Amino acid sequence: MTDDQSRLDRSDPTGAIAAAAAEFGNWGRWGDDDVLGTLNFIDAAKRLAAAGLVTRGAAFSLAQSFDGNGPQNGWRRRTNPVHTMLDTGVDAALGNQGFPHGLGGADDVVFMPLQASTQWDGLGHIFDHGRTWNGRPSQDVVTSEGDLRTGIQTTADRFVSRGVLLDAGRVLGTDGELPDGFAITPAQLDEVIDAQGASAEVGRGDIVLVRTGRLTRARREGWGDYAGGASAGLSFTSAGWLHSHEIAAVATDTWGFEVRPNEFDVAFQPLHQVVIPNMGLFIGEMWDLDALADDCASDSRYDFLLTAAPIPFTGAVGAPVNPIALK
Amino acid sequence: MTDDQSRLDRSDPTGAIAAAAAEFGNWGRWGDDDVLGTLNFIDAAKRLAAAGLVTRGAAFSLAQSFDGNGPQNGWRRRTNPVHTMLDTGVDAALGNQGFPHGLGGADDVVFMPLQASTQWDGLGHIFDHGRTWNGRPSQDVVTSEGDLRTGIQTTADRFVSRGVLLDAGRVLGTDGELPDGFAITPAQLDEVIDAQGASAEVGRGDIVLVRTGRLTRARREGWGDYAGGASAGLSFTSAGWLHSHEIAAVATDTWGFEVRPNEFDVAFQPLHQVVIPNMGLFIGEMWDLDALADDCASDSRYDFLLTAAPIPFTGAVGAPVNPIALK
Amino acid sequence: MTDDQSRLDRSDPTGAIAAAAAEFGNWGRWGDDDVLGTLNFIDAAKRLAAAGLVTRGAAFSLAQSFDGNGPQNGWRRRTNPVHTMLDTGVDAALGNQGFPHGLGGADDVVFMPLQASTQWDGLGHIFDHGRTWNGRPSQDVVTSEGDLRTGIQTTADRFVSRGVLLDAGRVLGTDGELPDGFAITPAQLDEVIDAQGASAEVGRGDIVLVRTGRLTRARREGWGDYAGGASAGLSFTSAGWLHSHEIAAVATDTWGFEVRPNEFDVAFQPLHQVVIPNMGLFIGEMWDLDALADDCASDSRYDFLLTAAPIPFTGAVGAPVNPIALK
Amino acid sequence: MTDDQSRLDRSDPTGAIAAAAAEFGNWGRWGDDDVLGTLNFIDAAKRLAAAGLVTRGAAFSLAQSFDGNGPQNGWRRRTNPVHTMLDTGVDAALGNQGFPHGLGGADDVVFMPLQASTQWDGLGHIFDHGRTWNGRPSQDVVTSEGDLRTGIQTTADRFVSRGVLLDAGRVLGTDGELPDGFAITPAQLDEVIDAQGASAEVGRGDIVLVRTGRLTRARREGWGDYAGGASAGLSFTSAGWLHSHEIAAVATDTWGFEVRPNEFDVAFQPLHQVVIPNMGLFIGEMWDLDALADDCASDSRYDFLLTAAPIPFTGAVGAPVNPIALK
Repeated sequence: MTDDQSRLDRSDPTGAIAAAAAEFGNWGRWGDDDVLGTLNFIDAAKRLAAAGLVTRGAAFSLAQSFDGNGPQNGWRRRTNPVHTMLDTGVDAALGNQGFPHGLGGADDVVFMPLQASTQWDGLGHIFDHGRTWNGRPSQDVVTSEGDLRTGIQTTADRFVSRGVLLDAGRVLGTDGELPDGFAITPAQLDEVIDAQGASAEVGRGDIVLVRTGRLTRARREGWGDYAGGASAGLSFTSAGWLHSHEIAAVATDTWGFEVRPNEFDVAFQPLHQVVIPNMGLFIGEMWDLDALADDCASDSRYDFLLTAAPIPFTGAVGAPVNPIALK
Repeated sequence: MTDDQSRLDRSDPTGAIAAAAAEFGNWGRWGDDDVLGTLNFIDAAKRLAAAGLVTRGAAFSLAQSFDGNGPQNGWRRRTNPVHTMLDTGVDAALGNQGFPHGLGGADDVVFMPLQASTQWDGLGHIFDHGRTWNGRPSQDVVTSEGDLRTGIQTTADRFVSRGVLLDAGRVLGTDGELPDGFAITPAQLDEVIDAQGASAEVGRGDIVLVRTGRLTRARREGWGDYAGGASAGLSFTSAGWLHSHEIAAVATDTWGFEVRPNEFDVAFQPLHQVVIPNMGLFIGEMWDLDALADDCASDSRYDFLLTAAPIPFTGAVGAPVNPIALK
Repeated sequence: MTDDQSRLDRSDPTGAIAAAAAEFGNWGRWGDDDVLGTLNFIDAAKRLAAAGLVTRGAAFSLAQSFDGNGPQNGWRRRTNPVHTMLDTGVDAALGNQGFPHGLGGADDVVFMPLQASTQWDGLGHIFDHGRTWNGRPSQDVVTSEGDLRTGIQTTADRFVSRGVLLDAGRVLGTDGELPDGFAITPAQLDEVIDAQGASAEVGRGDIVLVRTGRLTRARREGWGDYAGGASAGLSFTSAGWLHSHEIAAVATDTWGFEVRPNEFDVAFQPLHQVVIPNMGLFIGEMWDLDALADDCASDSRYDFLLTAAPIPFTGAVGAPVNPIALK
Repeated sequence: MTDDQSRLDRSDPTGAIAAAAAEFGNWGRWGDDDVLGTLNFIDAAKRLAAAGLVTRGAAFSLAQSFDGNGPQNGWRRRTNPVHTMLDTGVDAALGNQGFPHGLGGADDVVFMPLQASTQWDGLGHIFDHGRTWNGRPSQDVVTSEGDLRTGIQTTADRFVSRGVLLDAGRVLGTDGELPDGFAITPAQLDEVIDAQGASAEVGRGDIVLVRTGRLTRARREGWGDYAGGASAGLSFTSAGWLHSHEIAAVATDTWGFEVRPNEFDVAFQPLHQVVIPNMGLFIGEMWDLDALADDCASDSRYDFLLTAAPIPFTGAVGAPVNPIALK
């Protein structure tokens, strides 16, 4: 396997995926029963060191909004969240609620795909030829009752580590944005790190946040085909980089993490197929990195304490998260 | 107003609420446009100091599970979350999904009341005689379209501060648990702090976590009427304590935060009516404090960095959260 | 009030609505407690006569499909139905379900706006200056808990009567379809009846189905703005006709029943405002009348037994229905 | 196979099911592509004759209510419907909605299992050793995308026929109700017919409604374990009777149609396994037959025109229905 995009055989995604899986797979690395994959790279020492990065007390939410105005368009039945009220302040004002002593209340419900907005992909989200993380048959792991082994709840206390922002949009793009179809290669990831300086060095257990500027554009121009359409993103050839740096997770400001259209003639999210079931790597999508990126550009500090704990839905293959970067 | 529970007039919750609201209300304290209430007590210095509390890198998730086996029983249409799959590993194994190169995927959706499990109450959750936080008419703030002013998304980056665990169950109870109906008074809160030592001192901007042991019992005995039934909790008389300590938020391991049955002959959550709309205090409910409590008892350190960022549903009056304590 | 569209004052919908409400309103007609409005026109004799119309035993479903490929676009949070499986035949084939003796099963759930597809508007769906059917204050009738008086369940056994198809598309249009913005006037309704002959005469207790051809076009060209966009439909001036014929209900093959854009400079569904709260008339929308219309054109019989019983959701202001015409 | 319940081998449901399937199966009877099963027994002549049964114009809704107060208890994630409002009359009264000329509106949504209340089981609901109706592999028919072949929408215009009420509760029970565990045998079905007289004769294409009185009791005593608990119902030995009479469908006032506990030592709904996938018979459950039964007892007429068209959710394996009996 090479980092060199020019050497990808565009006609053979199956072969490329198999080769990458063989070279960068982690099955068995943490034992047969493992359900945490690359989250194993995070340990107490890592978390302690990450807390030590906090120097100003500045907090940033990296979540997009969760509402009906989101990017989802119904593809594979993914809709935007529908939020409705069970009780309102209007009812309360009219005394319709039956409570004593002037109490009034409001309550609400939501219906949503778990990957409707800012989220972590769980390890049960993607399969490679019917195999899920650690080589388990997908049919044994993710049934209609949910993910019976690697449900997102197993990671409830794990997403706390050093975060590193790689602002590919700013370093490699124009006006802070990469064009659609821009495939970020390993060499370019290194270029971003070099440009950003020492605080952007990436190592074991880090959670790497790659900003492309795709969300910035959607904010300006409207969603368009943000969900599922063309986008900058990581090149298929970045698999080795993601593996060798022993990162715990990676997230982007795009719908699909990897470049789209994908780098094969006929393919669908081939890098997912390598990194989730084979590498055991957690992917975050639809994160909002813009305010954090502005701040990092301003103080030239690209690392921080990142707490990004998903809502631990039992058996979920993905989950909403409101990630907090603390600098 | 007094801390003395014996001086509560059990027949007059309306009067007691009005008196407490007058004494402990914060309307206008942070300007007419404020939507953050006591979260204003948290600033960068507070967050920086909180990060400094991390000495071991030990992380604790304080979330209960989110699934169909929760405590909800349908009261006010609050059900447990219903999680269903849009695609599964079983379909993938059979090649039913139409993806190329051996890719398979699973996706899921959820239907849930936003207060089904571990959550923050937003400031639009409770009203006092038709008024919501800062004196706004509830009918203008929380309509069928949601909370138009104090929606939980306004707090997306705010719940990062020093957390302090007050393990009332351990200090005041038997085998770590308080009996139902036990009303924790201000004097008892102070007793817990004294027993726990200096790391349990409470001050401005802290997020206070009060453990009663109610969840511990539910875990052992089954949910029973955990949702809405009798429980230990904060006494109505604690309003002044919550106010004078200038805390940013308070959370408990119970369904309803305050003691139940309430301390009046006919009442429903009267302390909520004081602290949410009048004081602007954020309340967390159904938190799982047990593992953290064991750890704190073990190392005698009761404060920590707490990151408890709710999923920022636009217009929500409450939201699920996976709080992370980092020691 | 006149049938004459040219005499509508386009600048004064409020005045026109008030005049029509005064002239065609039915408040009190069936007593102060009435919840059925024009459904009162249907009695046992009417149903018996309707059954007598069946001469061939030909049945037609007048429902559109209920699925994610429908016309809804999120306006006022109306989405298309989302249907998900709780168990599948794929799980069953793999023996994942835990049942004895080779039993397997599939189950499903749906999330849907009640007016997502073919539906009846209930009497609680539309208000006129805060008044609902029979003059009741809307705030007393339809709260966050639903319609407490005229919930659709009160009509569970009522929608059985003589149905009459008025194929305005065929009689008045080109190739069976009316153009967008075509307002069907009373004179044109009579023209359709005259053209169709005696079986199309309309009288007391009938359920009148008006076909515009709008759905036919959507089927051919795609939904476009079927939901909420321009369309043929009943003219505001048809209120008197709907009233004087003492029909029980009216339904169309369009999203909104009345012509769009509406016939005033600034207006939104003004005919609804007259007929639902004031007249007590039930409106059906998004019906599929095409197969029935073909049959009626073929045998020149335009009346039939219509059974159109909504799913009786308690407190609903509208409900899905699969109407059956039996000729 | 015999009607004789005493000859059932309680230890061998698998064998009994296989024998019944072999004797009473209908695979191929209506061609390899058939998706309608026993609904094929209904033709135009049958519908015409059924319409001729209407002599009084009396209509009966046979639906239970659809709301949060239903019998569901979460088994297999089946909850009661949750109905919430998107807009209310309270908002409208306060002018919060943004409509012109005094228009106000209310809208609503529902989340529900399709078998939460009165429903038809579709042919994709139950499998026999991984086979669904007509011998198709269940994994090819019912995937996470729903029932791709026998979805309930294929029956949209089919449930119109002669209905016959067999009031087993009244004829065989005490005070109109059968005790839990009462297995209605073929001989007893005939006994009911004999007692009720000629209008209760059952023949080809009929939809047979069997009343046990179970719902009557639930209405009096509360739901208890109506959903999934003990109940009167059809005996496993009735399979031959259901087959030989060539009925189109059968429905009961119980949760599960067949007697519970089932008539084997270890079993779950064995009669379902025979009649749905093998016989192609449609089963209705949780129907409310009480008002109709009173009427039939009163006029001694047990047959009627039955229109019971399910909401045609695409790909559904069951669907809500509001059945209308017209006498």
